[in-house]
Amino acid sequence: MLVLPEIPAFDEDAAGRVRRHQLTLTKPPGSLGRLEDLAAFYAGVRGQFPAPVPARAELFVFAADHGVATEGVSAYPAEVTAAMVGNFRRGGAAVNVLARQAGVEVTVVDVGVKGALAAAPPDDVSPGVRGPAFVDARVAPGTRNLRREPAMSPAEVDAAVEVGLAMAAAGAARGADLLVGGDMGIANTTAATALLCALGGEDPANVVGRGAGVDDEGLMRKIQVIRDALVLHGDAYFALDADAATSAYGALRTLGGLEIAALVGLMLGGAARRVPVIVDGFIAGAAALVACRLRPGVRAHLLLSHLSAERGARRLAALVGGPVPLLDLGMRLGEGTGATLAVPLVRAAVALQNQMATFAGAGVPDRA
Amino acid sequence: MLVLPEIPAFDEDAAGRVRRHQLTLTKPPGSLGRLEDLAAFYAGVRGQFPAPVPARAELFVFAADHGVATEGVSAYPAEVTAAMVGNFRRGGAAVNVLARQAGVEVTVVDVGVKGALAAAPPDDVSPGVRGPAFVDARVAPGTRNLRREPAMSPAEVDAAVEVGLAMAAAGAARGADLLVGGDMGIANTTAATALLCALGGEDPANVVGRGAGVDDEGLMRKIQVIRDALVLHGDAYFALDADAATSAYGALRTLGGLEIAALVGLMLGGAARRVPVIVDGFIAGAAALVACRLRPGVRAHLLLSHLSAERGARRLAALVGGPVPLLDLGMRLGEGTGATLAVPLVRAAVALQNQMATFAGAGVPDRA
Repeated sequence: MLVLPEIPAFDEDAAGRVRRHQLTLTKPPGSLGRLEDLAAFYAGVRGQFPAPVPARAELFVFAADHGVATEGVSAYPAEVTAAMVGNFRRGGAAVNVLARQAGVEVTVVDVGVKGALAAAPPDDVSPGVRGPAFVDARVAPGTRNLRREPAMSPAEVDAAVEVGLAMAAAGAARGADLLVGGDMGIANTTAATALLCALGGEDPANVVGRGAGVDDEGLMRKIQVIRDALVLHGDAYFALDADAATSAYGALRTLGGLEIAALVGLMLGGAARRVPVIVDGFIAGAAALVACRLRPGVRAHLLLSHLSAERGARRLAALVGGPVPLLDLGMRLGEGTGATLAVPLVRAAVALQNQMATFAGAGVPDRA
Repeated sequence: MLVLPEIPAFDEDAAGRVRRHQLTLTKPPGSLGRLEDLAAFYAGVRGQFPAPVPARAELFVFAADHGVATEGVSAYPAEVTAAMVGNFRRGGAAVNVLARQAGVEVTVVDVGVKGALAAAPPDDVSPGVRGPAFVDARVAPGTRNLRREPAMSPAEVDAAVEVGLAMAAAGAARGADLLVGGDMGIANTTAATALLCALGGEDPANVVGRGAGVDDEGLMRKIQVIRDALVLHGDAYFALDADAATSAYGALRTLGGLEIAALVGLMLGGAARRVPVIVDGFIAGAAALVACRLRPGVRAHLLLSHLSAERGARRLAALVGGPVPLLDLGMRLGEGTGATLAVPLVRAAVALQNQMATFAGAGVPDRA
C-alpha cells in the first residue's frame, strides 16, 4: 500500500487567537455566524495568526472514465468525459466560468480518460480568455467495470493518488494558499455511491440517486450494479480484522475511480502542506470520506463547500462528519463548481478577521 | 399617503429565454440548481436577454435610531448607532470589508441618527482605502418610543421612504444594475419584530429574538414592549375594512423605523427601475414584507439573500413568500452583510448563462 503523508495537527492556538480577536471587532459576538468559523478554520489549517487573505486559489479538475458506464447507469454516453476535457481546456464549462468570476486558477488533469483528446485547444478559444493549464497524467484508459472486477489494480490506485499528491505539491510550490478539487467522469456517481455504501453500511436502494439524470430504468440498473459490486468486492473493504484505513483503501481500489483517487491525493497532499482543501459535492465528498478514513487528521483541513442535490449527499456529508456543508444551492454538476463558489466566502471570512475595526480602535461603545 | 411608484411586471419572456438557453449549455438540465433560477430572475427583472453580468452593485446602509431603545430592549447602548456610522465612513465595519471583497460600492445614509456625527471621517483612514460615500438625509433624530406613541408621523415616514426612493434613483442614474440594502440602528429588531407580529398575526412570545444579544431579562422586556405596542397601535394596522397596503403603511408608521422605511423606498425604487434589490436579513426582511404589502408586484424584483439567525427570520421569510433565502450562514449582523455575500452569486449565475459553451458549440454529445 501507498505510503501516505503525515498530516500536521490543526493549529488550535492560531484558531483560538482568531476567536479571541473576533470578540474585539465591531459586531455582536458570533453575529457573523459561519464566517467566524471559517476564519478560525483557515488560520488553524495554515498554522498562522493572522493568516493573510488567500491570494492564490488553485482548482484541479480530475477527469477519468469508468468501466461501469457500459452497464447503462448514466444518462450520458461515456464519450462525454473526453469531450468535456476539451471544453474545460477551452474555458467553456461551468467551472471555468465560475473560476474566472472568483479569480481561481484552473488545471485540468487527465488521470484516466478513455478516448483520445485533442492535442491542444482548438483555435476558437475566446480572445482574452487565458486557457486553463492541462496535465496529462493518465494512469489508465478508465477503470474496469466494478460490477465484474476490481475497478483498479493496486498499482493504478496508487498512481492515481500520487497524481493528486503531486498536484497539491505543485500548487503549494506555486504559492497556492487554497486548493479546490473537482471531478469529471461519466458514471462516477455509481462509483461514489458504491463507496458510500461500502464505507457507510448503506443499502443502495436507500442512497442511489440519478446522477446527471438517469431515467427510472437506469436507476434500477444502478442499484443492482452497486449491489452486485458490494457482494463481489466485500472482502476488499469489509473484514473483521481490517482497520479503517485498510478498508477504505480496499473500497477505493475495487469500487472507486481514478479521479476519486486523485482527489484523495489532493486532499491528503493539501493537508500535509497546511493548505486548506475545499471539497465539492458528491464525488469529492466520497473522496473526502476515503481520505478521512485513511488519515483521520485530514478532516480538520477540509471545507465541505456545498450539499449536492444528489440523493445520498446528506448521508455522505454526515459520514465525513464535522461542520455541515456551507452552501445548499441544489447543485449537482461536479467539476468543482460548488467548491469554487465557496472561495469568495473563505476570502471574505479572513478579510473580516484582518480588516474590521475593533471597538476600541473605532471608538464604538461595547456592550456593558 | 405617499404616492408610490408603479412596479413594472417581471419579464417572463426574458426569464423563459434564459430557461431555454440553459437547456443547451454543457451541463445536465437543472444541475446548477439555484444559480439557474438566479439567472432567470436577473433577466426577468432587467427585462433583458441576454442581460450582461452586473457590473455595478451599489449598497446603501441606512442608519437611524429608535426611541424604543430607552426601554432596555438591546444589548448595546443607543450611542452605538452614531458611532457605527463613523465606522462605516472609515471603512472599518463588517459590511465595508465584505463590500470591498465583492466589489460593491457603499453609500452610508443617515436617515435618522439621534446624536451628532463627526463632520468627516478622521484622518486615520487606511491609505489606499477609498472611503464610502455619505449622504446626510436625516429626517428626524430617531423615532419616538413605539411603546408609548407612533414611531413616526405621516410626514416622517413618507420622507424616509422618499430617501430610499431617491437612493434607488441615484444609484440607477449612476448605472447600478444591482442594489443592496443594509441597516444600522440600535433596537431595530424590536421594530422589525413588531412589524412581523402586526402584519403576520404572530404572538410576540413566539417570534421575539435576542437581536444583537440581549439577555433574558431584556428579552422579556422586549416581548412586553411589543405586546404593548401592538395593543396601542392596533387601529393603525388592523381594521376590517383596511386593504393590505393601508395596513402595511399604518404598521410601518407606528411600529417601524426610519431606516426600515428607507429600505422600503429602496426596494420600491429599484423595482420601479428594473434594478434587482438584494434583501439582507431580519430588518431588511421586515422592510421587504412592508414593500410587498404596499406593492405586491415588487416581490419578483427582490432576492432574499440569507436566512438570519434571528429567531423570527424563518417566519418573516415565509410571510414575504417566494423563493427561500439563498444562504443560511447563521449570520445576524445586519448592515447588508449577508446581502453583500449574495452579490458574487448573482454575478456567477449571469456569467454562467452568458459564457458557458453549448453542447453543439463545444462538440459535446448530449443525452439521447
